[in-house]
Amino acid sequence: MKMPLTLNDMQSLRNVTSGVEKADIALLHGDVVDVYSGRMLHDYSVAIKGDWIAALGQDIDCMIGPGTQVIDVSGKVLVPGLVDGHTHLNCIARPEDILRFCMLGGTTTIVNETMEIVHTAGYKGMIEYMAAFENQPVKVFFTVAIPLNLNHSADRLMPTVAQLKRLLTRDDVAGVGEGYWQMVLAGNKYLPTLAEESLRLGKTVEGHGAGAHNAKLETYLAYGVNSDHESTSVEDVLERLRMGVFVQIRQGTIRKELDALAPMAKMNIDLSHVSIVTDGIDPRDMEKSGYLEASAQTAVDLGFDFIKVIQMVTLNPARHFRLDHYVGGIAPAKHADIIVLPNSKTIKPELVISRGKPIVQRGKLLVQPSPYTFTIKGLTAPKRRVKPGDLAIKAPGTAPLSIRIMDLVTELVSREAIVEMTPENGELKPDISRDLLKICLLTPGHRPFSALVRGIGINQGAIASSYIWETYGVVAVGVNDQDIASAMNRVVELTGGIVFCENGEMVSELPLTVGALMTDQPLEPVLAAMRAIQTRSEELGGKFPDLIKTMSVLCTGAIPFLRIHEDGLIDIKSNSILPIIAEG
Amino acid sequence: MKMPLTLNDMQSLRNVTSGVEKADIALLHGDVVDVYSGRMLHDYSVAIKGDWIAALGQDIDCMIGPGTQVIDVSGKVLVPGLVDGHTHLNCIARPEDILRFCMLGGTTTIVNETMEIVHTAGYKGMIEYMAAFENQPVKVFFTVAIPLNLNHSADRLMPTVAQLKRLLTRDDVAGVGEGYWQMVLAGNKYLPTLAEESLRLGKTVEGHGAGAHNAKLETYLAYGVNSDHESTSVEDVLERLRMGVFVQIRQGTIRKELDALAPMAKMNIDLSHVSIVTDGIDPRDMEKSGYLEASAQTAVDLGFDFIKVIQMVTLNPARHFRLDHYVGGIAPAKHADIIVLPNSKTIKPELVISRGKPIVQRGKLLVQPSPYTFTIKGLTAPKRRVKPGDLAIKAPGTAPLSIRIMDLVTELVSREAIVEMTPENGELKPDISRDLLKICLLTPGHRPFSALVRGIGINQGAIASSYIWETYGVVAVGVNDQDIASAMNRVVELTGGIVFCENGEMVSELPLTVGALMTDQPLEPVLAAMRAIQTRSEELGGKFPDLIKTMSVLCTGAIPFLRIHEDGLIDIKSNSILPIIAEG
Repeated sequence: MKMPLTLNDMQSLRNVTSGVEKADIALLHGDVVDVYSGRMLHDYSVAIKGDWIAALGQDIDCMIGPGTQVIDVSGKVLVPGLVDGHTHLNCIARPEDILRFCMLGGTTTIVNETMEIVHTAGYKGMIEYMAAFENQPVKVFFTVAIPLNLNHSADRLMPTVAQLKRLLTRDDVAGVGEGYWQMVLAGNKYLPTLAEESLRLGKTVEGHGAGAHNAKLETYLAYGVNSDHESTSVEDVLERLRMGVFVQIRQGTIRKELDALAPMAKMNIDLSHVSIVTDGIDPRDMEKSGYLEASAQTAVDLGFDFIKVIQMVTLNPARHFRLDHYVGGIAPAKHADIIVLPNSKTIKPELVISRGKPIVQRGKLLVQPSPYTFTIKGLTAPKRRVKPGDLAIKAPGTAPLSIRIMDLVTELVSREAIVEMTPENGELKPDISRDLLKICLLTPGHRPFSALVRGIGINQGAIASSYIWETYGVVAVGVNDQDIASAMNRVVELTGGIVFCENGEMVSELPLTVGALMTDQPLEPVLAAMRAIQTRSEELGGKFPDLIKTMSVLCTGAIPFLRIHEDGLIDIKSNSILPIIAEG
Repeated sequence: MKMPLTLNDMQSLRNVTSGVEKADIALLHGDVVDVYSGRMLHDYSVAIKGDWIAALGQDIDCMIGPGTQVIDVSGKVLVPGLVDGHTHLNCIARPEDILRFCMLGGTTTIVNETMEIVHTAGYKGMIEYMAAFENQPVKVFFTVAIPLNLNHSADRLMPTVAQLKRLLTRDDVAGVGEGYWQMVLAGNKYLPTLAEESLRLGKTVEGHGAGAHNAKLETYLAYGVNSDHESTSVEDVLERLRMGVFVQIRQGTIRKELDALAPMAKMNIDLSHVSIVTDGIDPRDMEKSGYLEASAQTAVDLGFDFIKVIQMVTLNPARHFRLDHYVGGIAPAKHADIIVLPNSKTIKPELVISRGKPIVQRGKLLVQPSPYTFTIKGLTAPKRRVKPGDLAIKAPGTAPLSIRIMDLVTELVSREAIVEMTPENGELKPDISRDLLKICLLTPGHRPFSALVRGIGINQGAIASSYIWETYGVVAVGVNDQDIASAMNRVVELTGGIVFCENGEMVSELPLTVGALMTDQPLEPVLAAMRAIQTRSEELGGKFPDLIKTMSVLCTGAIPFLRIHEDGLIDIKSNSILPIIAEG
């Protein structure tokens, strides 16, 4: 991926500014957001040659010739192509389907995590995943995955430190990806070496410091971490800024922080060290609301100054990733990434130009992203089918016991809870009346582990999914062992996917055969299957707005507090396995 | 020069934040400028371990042990060590003498040009010059010189493009140095290739765009140039910002722009793309007023917001040079470069800490910079002594002629002027009554060239200097050929220097034997000699406040319009030699 100016580019730009050649495209008489001075420039025109902006001025007539495509943008607002500085583009749909939404919304530069795929398809998965985004109509950079698997099912897939270190030298690699702070503090073997190398190369070390404060945050920063996308309050933002951390306000499917951070709009805070990122958007949400442009629109609607919002999704992230020599502003010798908005309140592009090529006009793609054929597989193990009896939670006696359960206090956050349960025939059974469902994790080479979970709310059937963060395996939640076993077996049969099983029948299923995380199917049926799963969940009393999302975080070390692990319930903060039968 | 965090640093910082080890230094209860959020933090403390800041918090007591040096900074203001993003530290005095002033004022990071020395001592000169600043108490980075010599006397010394390209990979090289825009547009052979390589490496391309606007500026930027320190008006600043150029406001010996730019303080301009730089300060000025801290103080005095001024001399330049991972802010895992000010109006440090070591306290150096012994020589040619007769300006006839002269309209800027002069005995003689003095340039391998100059004002003797920009040779100005020849011969005899000669006697002399630009002598006698030259100049009617400075720019392509060249008077804009006897 050739990015910075070359000698040929220099000559070509010079030919235009010195009158030897004419511009390819001229955008005439628009209002241009000058992200560098934070001002709106009225009645300015832009000359584009090849991939680059040649000129920005009030009179560029001398650069217009018969071959120049002249576009009148009077009354419109020109803004640099948007930059998403932290995202996960592996949200079930195929890369090309995700990219269509990015393009339609005017995001022309993306810094993409690679962490999910490494946990299910290893180094080869990463390399293919990165290849899928090469030579696309918009620029996609990557951060190198830090392996963060709590479970050991994918240990054999994990890259070596040396392999990942080499990736850091790639031109399309912007730095090291998010290593969750608890796991870094607990001694993740990858992060220190990769951080040292990334800093040596002048690249970044992205952070994930959810809930880290004071000395814990400082210890995390001791590893050279220089960004964080986990602020959920103004105090979080101020603490991170004070500590020199580049703040990425998250507004996407996983969480939407802008509401809580809206008071910042009225505070006297320098926002040059702040950006807005998606952290990934589910394709259902993208179809409904768009991509980063929607996040930026929310910021404007919440009262943030329009120009500051534009800076937070253009120059600021470009500067953080040291891409600002050619990305993030409408200026000579920058990439011609420009979006044309109807006015300075509405971040919905009428025209998107990426590296000098119009790619979207009036909501229609003029260029299609390239498809990519993955050779990596999905789940290839285990061979033995799960039997309902494998899922029993053994418990002695007939007296009530204090049982430790996973309590989903929000759709993402789980806490330990102790409930009283009485064993039946030597085991603990789900109790729908108290919304105590069974949760099971199946990882290759390991017998299934089962526990109890509260909060999901369905009163029939079971859901199983391989679309789970940092775990190579299948997680399932259900009301009976038969449906759970059937659902898990079906996901294994599909080599990955999400299925909903009721009374032994698969009422919905979505195969995810690429690294057990992504589909190879077109968008429409995939969205339909995702919606069907959610609809059925809600019909059955499901409480969370997106059960696929809630399922995806049940094994993660990213979000506190109690998670399910192949060896038992795990306390993320202390990294310790806790018994199901609680003391006392 | 090891700079970013290493594995050892990470461990050491972690030991402090997690309570295993204690801090080396604790600064307690100060007001800290948070350059990231643009706010003042009240009652914050800083823990330092080794070269690094370990913690910034309201309570760091747990990090203090018996071995910790505890410094009470209550009531004081803590600011990051200052960063000078564009300077020339070869101002006659020895590197260690210059550095003392930088240290005393709290400048702990310097980006230093290498262009002067390459023109008089070639590649070897550059390498030694850079070595002189290695392992000093403050960090010195370099920009790689773009050879810009108009004269050919040093052609044999000029490095190859490949040699300079290799230098760009050095850790202490921040980018490409200033290539004057006219010379770049005229086809400088070095800049395009070096700019391409620097951008590829993620480094910068520093600019010098004095007087370039619109298409000319855009053509210059087509070469990837991304900074400029030549703005002399608010309009210049706004044009450069709009074009994505990092603006370096110059406030040093060569020029002081802050007065003219003071209206910016009241305008609603984002200053994150703006910094203040010295562009070099004469040691006499340093002794009198200080270094970059004095420039910053001027900005405060002119009404710029204190915190924004601090950002302009810390984070902003650090970010531009991509040093912000460890320079430019008081935050965990940044270099412990901290200055303690008496209040938030006075930028005069009471304590300077550089990479964790106190280097200045109450105006006294605690650490001395290292001396460096240069092996490069000064002027080594020509061998033949100049005779007065060599300096004659031949002109035919006895009738008045229209004579083209160099008219110094300011101490730096020269214009062409045409005056009427009548030849005497076939030559043009100086005319003190009209302040028409003789100006001569002696370059090795070339016979001296002589012309007439107006503006200097001395009515006796001659001054000769090898301290001249981008020229390997001696320039002289005087009222008679005898004194001019004697002065030039004396400079050659010294192998470089500045001398004032009257009636064949050297009334002042300052040997500059290191690359014909720098002394190897201690500061005091050097300052005395510099002052003596200026005093004598003024006694003899000299009009400019710093004749050494005015002499230094007589041959440069950096400043418009008419300059002296070994082949004649040269028009800098058109790069053409103009005859002394004007047409018509």
